[in-house]
Amino acid sequence: MIVYYNGQYLEKERVAISPDDRGFLFADGVYEVLRSYQGHLFRCAEHLKRLEFGLEELRMEGCRVKELGPVMYQLLHTNNLAQPDATVYVQVTRGSAPRNHRFPPRGTAPTVYAEAKAFTPPTQLQERGISAIVVADQRWARCDIKTVGLLAHTLACQRAEEAGAFEAIFSRDGVLLEGTRASILFVKDGNLVCPPLTNYVLPSVTRTVVLDVAAAEGIAANVRPCFEPELASFDEILMVGTTAEIIPIVSVGGVSIGNGQPGRLTRRLQTAFRKVVAAERAASSRAYGSGV
Amino acid sequence: MIVYYNGQYLEKERVAISPDDRGFLFADGVYEVLRSYQGHLFRCAEHLKRLEFGLEELRMEGCRVKELGPVMYQLLHTNNLAQPDATVYVQVTRGSAPRNHRFPPRGTAPTVYAEAKAFTPPTQLQERGISAIVVADQRWARCDIKTVGLLAHTLACQRAEEAGAFEAIFSRDGVLLEGTRASILFVKDGNLVCPPLTNYVLPSVTRTVVLDVAAAEGIAANVRPCFEPELASFDEILMVGTTAEIIPIVSVGGVSIGNGQPGRLTRRLQTAFRKVVAAERAASSRAYGSGV
Repeated sequence: MIVYYNGQYLEKERVAISPDDRGFLFADGVYEVLRSYQGHLFRCAEHLKRLEFGLEELRMEGCRVKELGPVMYQLLHTNNLAQPDATVYVQVTRGSAPRNHRFPPRGTAPTVYAEAKAFTPPTQLQERGISAIVVADQRWARCDIKTVGLLAHTLACQRAEEAGAFEAIFSRDGVLLEGTRASILFVKDGNLVCPPLTNYVLPSVTRTVVLDVAAAEGIAANVRPCFEPELASFDEILMVGTTAEIIPIVSVGGVSIGNGQPGRLTRRLQTAFRKVVAAERAASSRAYGSGV
Repeated sequence: MIVYYNGQYLEKERVAISPDDRGFLFADGVYEVLRSYQGHLFRCAEHLKRLEFGLEELRMEGCRVKELGPVMYQLLHTNNLAQPDATVYVQVTRGSAPRNHRFPPRGTAPTVYAEAKAFTPPTQLQERGISAIVVADQRWARCDIKTVGLLAHTLACQRAEEAGAFEAIFSRDGVLLEGTRASILFVKDGNLVCPPLTNYVLPSVTRTVVLDVAAAEGIAANVRPCFEPELASFDEILMVGTTAEIIPIVSVGGVSIGNGQPGRLTRRLQTAFRKVVAAERAASSRAYGSGV
């Protein structure tokens, strides 16, 4: 696999992250995961905008975010991923410097790493739905930034796995926030119910697409806090994210949601979402040829 | 510099952390910093016990913690640090595996990295005292584990630096917890006042030593929540930690503590602390020769 590392394209085995890298020592970094559909990076600009937001909030300097788009397309091209389903992972840290909690000297170059790999869409999960559990949110107070500080996420995700579930939904003081790897949306009485985008929720690129799609379909969206005791009263629950796309959550903590089957509104949104992806893929193809 | 990396001693430049390392991707790791006094690692067993606690809480397997003591002494020896003041840093992550929030397959080897380097004790700061600021605690809910998820710490420490202060004290809901790199103890009416060891406070090795020293000196210690509005009413404040040892905090947020000079009780504890260090250093020397 050819990856990108600090301006170079090289074999992944040749990448040597320094033990002084602030990503390794301090979780001092941000990342993005993008989905490539036949060589088209879906909502690439939105992902890079979110990356830039994180860099700005954390005051990380020196990463030329605009150059990352071409880098990611180059990775797809070089690794023969212009046709297969694929994902691109990109991570930027505050660079490598002698260990010190304070920021390193100005001018310290950030570490920029990116890789592309083939991806198998979770078609069966999208079709049949998944089960989830609720876990107490132990994360820090800036979940609106997509940092690599993901230990609470991994612990929650592992708990879900061991409970026979696919996803864990973070609940803070009884308020349902998001999953460990995706946003969560609820359906009640034919409307979408969406947790507000607070500092405890990542502004999900896919969620925005789904809300736009819902609006175009005439489905109303009500943004309001969603409480844990309400769970069983929702008609449908959706896990929405870059790799998940839209996966129905058909049970939470062993309790069926709705009739325990993927719901009607979920199906409509899945169909509409696929149309948006296909349309953007086609538009990009017309504009740029193969897209890669 | 010769460092330790996954069973080998090698030049630091030759260490190649994988971009798939869970320390780099997920902050999925723990660490310790130890202080060497003329080749004696102070309270080595206690540091390793805390490391082991973290590994157990996070269910990280495969690290033979008992072997790390000899590794650290070997690093001091190899790098000619048997006499100078030095520190040892050791970090253990859940190893390297294809990126997935869930734990990697059983048997995945942890990443173990350690380095020793010369250290200049903060003698002037211990003598004159430092100023601190109070920052809102944005950290996660398991601060009792010494993980590499230190982004909130680095942001707070940087804020302190930019405010002309040396340390930031985390306050959560108005309760004072600890510093970004050390524990905090307060003095009131001749007694020590100590924040309880909750999930928001690291069980500090140095704090335990200081409390033992205080008991031996006949100084009472009162463990109770300490509130932000109380700050100005404390007679003295101490920053206690492995590299800080005991540093007086003489002002917080621009407000003088006591008379704005290091206090009498701080001085007594500093003297008594140095005696403990010297005694343990001497005992180790008698038992093992040079200590390294």
